[in-house]
Amino acid sequence: MATQQSEQTTELKEDKIAIIGSGQIGGSWAVLFASAGYQVALYDVIPDRVTRTLESLLEQLHSLSRGGLLRGTLGVEEQWGRIRGVQDLGECVTGAIWVQECVPEDKELKRQVLTQVDQHCSLDTTVASSSSSILPSELSRNLKHKENFLVVHPTNPPFYSRAVELVPAPWTAPETMTRAQDLMKAVGQSPITLKTEIPGFVLNRMQFAIMAESYRLVKGGFLSPDGVNKALSAGLGRRYAFNGPFQTAHLNAEGFGSYCERYGDMIFRVQQSFGAPEQMGGALAEHIEGEMVKEVPLDSLEKARRRREAKMAALGKLKADLDSVKL
Amino acid sequence: MATQQSEQTTELKEDKIAIIGSGQIGGSWAVLFASAGYQVALYDVIPDRVTRTLESLLEQLHSLSRGGLLRGTLGVEEQWGRIRGVQDLGECVTGAIWVQECVPEDKELKRQVLTQVDQHCSLDTTVASSSSSILPSELSRNLKHKENFLVVHPTNPPFYSRAVELVPAPWTAPETMTRAQDLMKAVGQSPITLKTEIPGFVLNRMQFAIMAESYRLVKGGFLSPDGVNKALSAGLGRRYAFNGPFQTAHLNAEGFGSYCERYGDMIFRVQQSFGAPEQMGGALAEHIEGEMVKEVPLDSLEKARRRREAKMAALGKLKADLDSVKL
Repeated sequence: MATQQSEQTTELKEDKIAIIGSGQIGGSWAVLFASAGYQVALYDVIPDRVTRTLESLLEQLHSLSRGGLLRGTLGVEEQWGRIRGVQDLGECVTGAIWVQECVPEDKELKRQVLTQVDQHCSLDTTVASSSSSILPSELSRNLKHKENFLVVHPTNPPFYSRAVELVPAPWTAPETMTRAQDLMKAVGQSPITLKTEIPGFVLNRMQFAIMAESYRLVKGGFLSPDGVNKALSAGLGRRYAFNGPFQTAHLNAEGFGSYCERYGDMIFRVQQSFGAPEQMGGALAEHIEGEMVKEVPLDSLEKARRRREAKMAALGKLKADLDSVKL
Repeated sequence: MATQQSEQTTELKEDKIAIIGSGQIGGSWAVLFASAGYQVALYDVIPDRVTRTLESLLEQLHSLSRGGLLRGTLGVEEQWGRIRGVQDLGECVTGAIWVQECVPEDKELKRQVLTQVDQHCSLDTTVASSSSSILPSELSRNLKHKENFLVVHPTNPPFYSRAVELVPAPWTAPETMTRAQDLMKAVGQSPITLKTEIPGFVLNRMQFAIMAESYRLVKGGFLSPDGVNKALSAGLGRRYAFNGPFQTAHLNAEGFGSYCERYGDMIFRVQQSFGAPEQMGGALAEHIEGEMVKEVPLDSLEKARRRREAKMAALGKLKADLDSVKL
């Protein structure tokens, strides 16, 4: 069975990665780094949680193994053995080449944790926050080693979705960005590198652009929430799973320039008919939730998430298989 | 090998479908209807083109068969035998239960062709235009049987991408919409039904919302065209291949209502930072084309399109397989 990464033997590395926060994202990062052979130290402010996360990661690794979805060539026990729980933040960070902060999405909390991290890291440590929405400048303004800091925001869940966006603050050193790109490639992720920070970064801006139009179409009475979902899942999403917007346009005409010439005016007219964004909530949000609940009741959300992960893992394998053969 | 549709035996039907225009879209529609057992009459204003299309469809069917991708249970020769070229528009339309107009995207040309079609159809004939961008009201205003008219816009190419949007004019009869939904489901497509016409319909509005933000991000210097592509192909597109935007939001919190409560303010702030749409073209379009050409040179576009079709076909099979088993 094809593994998701290259078939090269995974090398055991002495380099230490520190993960701060052992929730779902922290756990997923731990497995990612361990599968690439790194030594992983996992810390949480609640010591019990680290223990529980370690147990759950072992189960996850066994389940991945059964599905033929382990990354790299290390076995389950070998990967799990690379991850060590630690009781002290200083001990976790000391000597690490990379710190991945994964505490809840709260600006003050993240700032406090990053200040603590800052006190223990060396000049060579890269510090990455998993934040999905807080600008790196807001998180790192007062750090001693702020030139070593960036946001490394994974798509949830990082193990199944390869995209990871790298966002610099104005003071992030170019070498920090290079190191981050290299490490992300080494662990099998697809880095998307921003040149400058911007609210929502790239993944959320794209997602919210789609959501803005989705919500307006339902609000305007043009179609049902189910119709919006199908437009992506039965239509556009099938193309975007393989080709991004510019690649799609390039193929849909005789190159991107010809696409703009042929369709540019029509596209611009349609885009000008978009209304202003709407704040989501109230009766319309309730109506949409009511429609979604028909497919996935609230007490089945966790099961539906697992199902989505299995589907995305299968797509990941399919893409790797398709890329490995000449079609 | 699993077929893309249900394993039920495809029934041969006496009902006749008329396809007007034998280009890529017309040919793809012909195969779709034939694979579901319908009698298909294919007309083109250039008689030679029908002959060439029929030859190419036979090749396509053989190639689909080799890939295990034929729809339904009829064999290649049997499907191909359901498609008949005709030299006269009147003969093509007479007695058809459904006319699918597939001439080039030119408002005047489509109006002329639809007026001719109108003269030959009965009170029971549904007339569908494959238009991707012309409002159904503009196409059907002066037709005698305008209550039987709608736009049925496929995602290109219709054989590989299931989504098809059904767009009514203000005077389209509800029964016409019902018949269209039923027929599209019968041939294995996923109909997305609009309640009212709107510029760009749904598929293009979504696509252009994504393009608007993609173009602005590159123009603003935030990231490269390649970064934009990866945000979809390595990230969001992998989710949208299975779940639409509202389903995704529903799973990413404790239901859609909780998603709006938790993230609504942040999303609204990011959405308000979107700029106005930009008309695409000029030096920036050239720069983007230059980047795209590095991956797919202009003389390899056709090969890249075939490769995309093969990938989308593989994804279609994967989705059908995943849906057929309990995960």
